[in-house]
Amino acid sequence: MTEFAAVDVIRAKRDGHTLSDAQIDWVVDAYTRGAVADEQMSALAMAILLRGMTPAEIARWTAAMIASGERLDLSAVTRPTADKHSTGGVGDKITLPLTPLVAACGAAVPQLSGRGLGHTGGTLDKLESIPGWRASISNDEFKRQLQDVGAVICAAGEGLAPADRKLYALRDVTGTVEAIPLIASSIMSKKIAEGTGALVLDVKVGSGAFMKDLDTARELASTMVRLGKDSGVNTIALLTDMNTPLGLAVGNAIEVTESVEVLAGGGPPDVVELTLALAREMLAAAGIDADPAKVLESGAAMDTWRAMIRAQGGDPEAPLPVARETEVLRASADGVVTSVDAYGIGLAAWRLGAGRARKEDPVSFGAGVLLKVKPGDEVRAGDVLLELRADDPDRIPAARTTAAEAVVIGAEQPSSTNLVLDRIA
Amino acid sequence: MTEFAAVDVIRAKRDGHTLSDAQIDWVVDAYTRGAVADEQMSALAMAILLRGMTPAEIARWTAAMIASGERLDLSAVTRPTADKHSTGGVGDKITLPLTPLVAACGAAVPQLSGRGLGHTGGTLDKLESIPGWRASISNDEFKRQLQDVGAVICAAGEGLAPADRKLYALRDVTGTVEAIPLIASSIMSKKIAEGTGALVLDVKVGSGAFMKDLDTARELASTMVRLGKDSGVNTIALLTDMNTPLGLAVGNAIEVTESVEVLAGGGPPDVVELTLALAREMLAAAGIDADPAKVLESGAAMDTWRAMIRAQGGDPEAPLPVARETEVLRASADGVVTSVDAYGIGLAAWRLGAGRARKEDPVSFGAGVLLKVKPGDEVRAGDVLLELRADDPDRIPAARTTAAEAVVIGAEQPSSTNLVLDRIA
Repeated sequence: MTEFAAVDVIRAKRDGHTLSDAQIDWVVDAYTRGAVADEQMSALAMAILLRGMTPAEIARWTAAMIASGERLDLSAVTRPTADKHSTGGVGDKITLPLTPLVAACGAAVPQLSGRGLGHTGGTLDKLESIPGWRASISNDEFKRQLQDVGAVICAAGEGLAPADRKLYALRDVTGTVEAIPLIASSIMSKKIAEGTGALVLDVKVGSGAFMKDLDTARELASTMVRLGKDSGVNTIALLTDMNTPLGLAVGNAIEVTESVEVLAGGGPPDVVELTLALAREMLAAAGIDADPAKVLESGAAMDTWRAMIRAQGGDPEAPLPVARETEVLRASADGVVTSVDAYGIGLAAWRLGAGRARKEDPVSFGAGVLLKVKPGDEVRAGDVLLELRADDPDRIPAARTTAAEAVVIGAEQPSSTNLVLDRIA
Repeated sequence: MTEFAAVDVIRAKRDGHTLSDAQIDWVVDAYTRGAVADEQMSALAMAILLRGMTPAEIARWTAAMIASGERLDLSAVTRPTADKHSTGGVGDKITLPLTPLVAACGAAVPQLSGRGLGHTGGTLDKLESIPGWRASISNDEFKRQLQDVGAVICAAGEGLAPADRKLYALRDVTGTVEAIPLIASSIMSKKIAEGTGALVLDVKVGSGAFMKDLDTARELASTMVRLGKDSGVNTIALLTDMNTPLGLAVGNAIEVTESVEVLAGGGPPDVVELTLALAREMLAAAGIDADPAKVLESGAAMDTWRAMIRAQGGDPEAPLPVARETEVLRASADGVVTSVDAYGIGLAAWRLGAGRARKEDPVSFGAGVLLKVKPGDEVRAGDVLLELRADDPDRIPAARTTAAEAVVIGAEQPSSTNLVLDRIA
């Protein structure tokens, strides 16, 4: 591999030049093995954020991140593989019902997931509220479960795109998270390395999402779809609304409960709608002809859920942790709920203990916010709007105002919005 | 002091906002004491480089760097104080004859200097080729010598603007040196903290300088003049040409020899011209009515030089180190020297051992390049153009081509250029 001076690579991007393939290969590899220092990579990340990257640079950067680790070989799995990735939202528990549902339709779903940081929750934190369930499994267990059960939700192994793990932690503390080339390559390097054949991206847009406007979300989605297709992964993206939390539960254990309700044929309509929309895309991308609504109704998805949880040591029948403290927030006047702000609810749940301030913090499984109303609901003064749950009563005051301000009551019905805003293939 | 999250300060500058006084005070202080990490400061430095800073931000940043350490009190010095700072060039030994000359005219010159890094030399490295001479002196010795001799050239004490020392080392490895707000605040924080009453800036422009074009150099000069004046330092700047090396010697001991020639009334015309131009500005800024040309002629400047060297342990009569190896480069054809590229000559001298690759490396005192021709000189094939000097013969091959390419021989006389390009007050 050609050697470069880190300063020259940083200067090139700083001055708006296109990095060469050799420069990208070297800098990603040298950073992974510690020859490029954190302070050099953060300066480069800031230059990338402010100067941008060409599609060819992003593709090469992604390839270099994949090459920093192992690439899983799922060729022994006989079913078609299909995965989903969400850019993160509030109350976004869709992975939980979706994974067993798509598996029950005949696909193998290799769902490598993450933990929450900031106001958005993490799939692994939610599942860890199930007694006994383990997020970490070996590559062999992963492949065996994928073949036998068809559904795996687990932590990405240490060997997968280690450059991304190191870079992500750095970006988080250096104000360089919001760079589309780095977001796209971070997500896609892990998904491509994981070996899935088809991939559906759920790119969230709105107050509770990382992308606040549709144009930026479209740019990110297009970049990722191109990266996936260029690497032989059949990739499509849905842009979905994240101005309002998904479902009624925002937390960990309470989101598992809501997910199980969906698998049992109930659950909030928006969670069911998005689960089915994503399931249809995943099945189509994997070339499977099945109707996920019928499979959900049949109870087969619930059977796969139970098998999936058991395969990773969890007891799907065990009672889930319940928070010690509950406080309800009530409407102060009659009216119509015009909006429930996803960011505010996410922040309140985080403050109640559902999320973590630092990576090494534990989460409180029972903590979170339960919505008793959604936009469009009519309320009377004194009606319960929200239920705050926490293990530590000291956490409630800081969440109370944020949560209360997130629910806006007005005189007129809000205009209706679509959950799925666009589709990019 | 108000506390901030480093990420919020980085994001603000990244997104093009103006940092508040409180944010600047906090981030400079927190970085100095290690609460803001190197990777955070380098991301901020890159954002400052690409987004810029308002004059008010630069002034506050400079003040925060001064506040990170001590500020010298020169009120006990009875003569008017005047200092000079050069942004660095090739063959730029002007500080050596200038400091004793201005002192001999009646000023006190507190010249805190640096070491070379890269292709430009450092004043302290040059003086250290004089046997016995010490760059480090205490604050008390500094003030006493300033009063008694009128001239001090020494290393800046550890206590002066420690934030700048730390930040400069970081910028050097992260591609963030070339940010005008950071260059200006780095230079001016040390000069203001040092306590001088008047300051003349020699801002170099051209191939051998840090600033390659006149507009950028003007912007830097104006920024520094404003910072100085706002802090009560009578500051003016000269913009001077650095496309051609100053004088005929580029190295350490050979530059001392050339400086002593100037003090003895001889020396290359360009070195004499710039020394006198800067001396006149310093004396005017300090309110001293004296003619430096007459003082130079009188021998008083040479007396002050000897006293200054002796006061810091040096023997002004001792023979200087001479390099073990010499190689001459000759003209291959008849013609006129159309240019002698300062950057090329600086790089060759550095490769011969006059400069250092890393801060902790020693320099070779005898190494360097002696010019035997200057632009406009007529030459014949076989005439000596350059003399390369090195202690280590293995260093010569890497310098030979660079040095040879720096001297361009053509058919016509080059158009004449002024040494002083502009004056900003």
